[in-house]
Amino acid sequence: MKMVDVGDKQKTQRVAVATGRVRMSAAALKKIRAGKVEKGDVIGAARIAGIMASKRTPDLIPLCHPISLSGVEVEVRTRPGGVEIRATVKTVDRTGVEMEALTAVSAAALTVYDMLKSTDRGMVIEGIELQHKSGGRSGVWNR
Amino acid sequence: MKMVDVGDKQKTQRVAVATGRVRMSAAALKKIRAGKVEKGDVIGAARIAGIMASKRTPDLIPLCHPISLSGVEVEVRTRPGGVEIRATVKTVDRTGVEMEALTAVSAAALTVYDMLKSTDRGMVIEGIELQHKSGGRSGVWNR
Amino acid sequence: MKMVDVGDKQKTQRVAVATGRVRMSAAALKKIRAGKVEKGDVIGAARIAGIMASKRTPDLIPLCHPISLSGVEVEVRTRPGGVEIRATVKTVDRTGVEMEALTAVSAAALTVYDMLKSTDRGMVIEGIELQHKSGGRSGVWNR
Amino acid sequence: MKMVDVGDKQKTQRVAVATGRVRMSAAALKKIRAGKVEKGDVIGAARIAGIMASKRTPDLIPLCHPISLSGVEVEVRTRPGGVEIRATVKTVDRTGVEMEALTAVSAAALTVYDMLKSTDRGMVIEGIELQHKSGGRSGVWNR
Amino acid sequence: MKMVDVGDKQKTQRVAVATGRVRMSAAALKKIRAGKVEKGDVIGAARIAGIMASKRTPDLIPLCHPISLSGVEVEVRTRPGGVEIRATVKTVDRTGVEMEALTAVSAAALTVYDMLKSTDRGMVIEGIELQHKSGGRSGVWNR
Amino acid sequence: MKMVDVGDKQKTQRVAVATGRVRMSAAALKKIRAGKVEKGDVIGAARIAGIMASKRTPDLIPLCHPISLSGVEVEVRTRPGGVEIRATVKTVDRTGVEMEALTAVSAAALTVYDMLKSTDRGMVIEGIELQHKSGGRSGVWNR
Repeated sequence: MKMVDVGDKQKTQRVAVATGRVRMSAAALKKIRAGKVEKGDVIGAARIAGIMASKRTPDLIPLCHPISLSGVEVEVRTRPGGVEIRATVKTVDRTGVEMEALTAVSAAALTVYDMLKSTDRGMVIEGIELQHKSGGRSGVWNR
Repeated sequence: MKMVDVGDKQKTQRVAVATGRVRMSAAALKKIRAGKVEKGDVIGAARIAGIMASKRTPDLIPLCHPISLSGVEVEVRTRPGGVEIRATVKTVDRTGVEMEALTAVSAAALTVYDMLKSTDRGMVIEGIELQHKSGGRSGVWNR
Repeated sequence: MKMVDVGDKQKTQRVAVATGRVRMSAAALKKIRAGKVEKGDVIGAARIAGIMASKRTPDLIPLCHPISLSGVEVEVRTRPGGVEIRATVKTVDRTGVEMEALTAVSAAALTVYDMLKSTDRGMVIEGIELQHKSGGRSGVWNR
Repeated sequence: MKMVDVGDKQKTQRVAVATGRVRMSAAALKKIRAGKVEKGDVIGAARIAGIMASKRTPDLIPLCHPISLSGVEVEVRTRPGGVEIRATVKTVDRTGVEMEALTAVSAAALTVYDMLKSTDRGMVIEGIELQHKSGGRSGVWNR
Repeated sequence: MKMVDVGDKQKTQRVAVATGRVRMSAAALKKIRAGKVEKGDVIGAARIAGIMASKRTPDLIPLCHPISLSGVEVEVRTRPGGVEIRATVKTVDRTGVEMEALTAVSAAALTVYDMLKSTDRGMVIEGIELQHKSGGRSGVWNR
Repeated sequence: MKMVDVGDKQKTQRVAVATGRVRMSAAALKKIRAGKVEKGDVIGAARIAGIMASKRTPDLIPLCHPISLSGVEVEVRTRPGGVEIRATVKTVDRTGVEMEALTAVSAAALTVYDMLKSTDRGMVIEGIELQHKSGGRSGVWNR
């Protein structure tokens, strides 16, 4: 097991986009839409938690390289059946930022769960996946 | 927005069980089963990452209480179509450990993704959900 | 230098309230009030940052005991001349939570600064102080 | 809310200097000057806490970029009425280090408070502000 | 692999004492004794680093329980041939604090190395071991 | 005390190799070799803990610069009398990675201790030292 050596790779602009969803009851979704969640602003908290978690990725994922991130954006929006999350992470470094984008989505989804769990313990986090990746030797990847 | 006051709740034994899956290509799954993943022991790394992440839950989820955990177990196993993760977290405290169990599952799933992403970038993390919760005022909850 | 032994103290309900201010230009304050800060919701971000920082207090302050927190609330509001922050932290433990309340205020104030610094680099963080403390051997303290 | 993309900015040498004060009773100040603080070397502990906190800035401030720091210096000295703190942070990166300097000052001030709070709970942290900033597109800024 | 469940154990006062040494050249040792180390107060920095690291033990050691610590003391002193470190950690909890004491010694030793490495890269950290342990079912253990 | 300014140094490829040992009883060693340690895979857990700790070095060692790491490898193997650990850390940056390599060895050794302490509390961590360092102004250093 090792964190592979990327010292000979080029520093290039790299982008990764990941998405995910939290499926929930109509009652829970209604609370978000009405801004009536007792614990506060679900969307805002989830976005911040996602951004902050992307920065902690190398602390959480054993073989992830600690790198600088040049930009992170996390969008959280309601849609039929629940909440949809989309994270875009950018760097200018020797290794990609897929894990940072996926970690941002995961933490945002967990935060949504946390803030609504007293209303609906049965929520399901699903569809966490990479949508796009560019930069670096392997080029562009789109789902 | 606030971390709700649980100071008047009783310290009781509490348990939470969460599960999740990583859906992957046959090629990726075969590599795990054959122990041929270049980055090393996927199952072992995912279990450790899950355990360690459960301890970081209050660092990641804005409104989670920092509490002692009395036990954490993370099981990761292959099954048709991918990998299945199950986390059991226990505490003797004033608040439940659902978020710790869900966070453990999420980090284990992200670690599986990280270790196999060079083989299959299209993997999907799905079905992260609470299975069981006991202890505390709200009693037993089962999916 | 040592983290003093509190093992013989009683576990009691303890509360600490701290406050602080960020003094800023009229232009910066107007942006917050109009919800026109480019970086987003200043009040919401500052509240979350304050709550999360209170949980990191023992990581930041060398001789602070790592303890459970039973509740944390951070209020951030505009007032003439700037923003006012008030943090209330509670625990049921052997040591007080003054540092956790002061750390929450500090992090919330720094977050306000960060989100508005492109508008006003001259902002000043001031008046970070304890307002109230109760529980434990030393009893109630009010400013 | 997003951590703005700085990927197109130039890596340049950047410096930020921030200052702050802890106002305290004559008794508390006298203890520091006499080296009689029960908890130990206040000045030394505050300097280290400030340096270490500057490195944790992106963990604390939601929209701060995680970057390398090339140098950090924290000075803590007594002056009439209390303690004065000055932090100088340097980087060679795409974004400034004002927040790192302000965070260093804040953590050093909180550490001073922590080490003296049994003598004077009424201490006030004040005047945390940027003094100087250079490097990057916006050029030199002096208070 | 799991963090074993200690939920049925009793909360008792527990103590662990660990020691270790950094063996160094006469030149390096002389610098410490003369207070002439360019980077600053070695003894003070090592003590603080040890205390702070003891609090991070569950972040570093995969199967360590996150617990409250009631007291931590780290002594660092010169002796013939180098520096000797002794950490005493106390808790009132369901599990022992050997790892916290050993981690404190390790971090203090690493800090000594860091501050003197420009003088002597050949220093050796050695003899990190438990000296004493009490409290809990297994009773008193002395080396 | 300060984190020295390395902003004028060149970014070069730098490598550091450190080693260390855990001396243990025949019974403990036998358990590892037979794969019979109750807590699980000692070698695997120690390797991961070492890699993860190398990334936390600037959080633990007060004057260490936060830098990107391009590669980390931790080998843990049994040998007569105990376990031997070897960490290799690489970066392309302005400062060396000796502390990251030594920290990786220390955390791996502590993890070995943790997983075997119920069998042998008398284990000793010893011989943590730098073996090799290259890159940067001071050139190659070998023990």
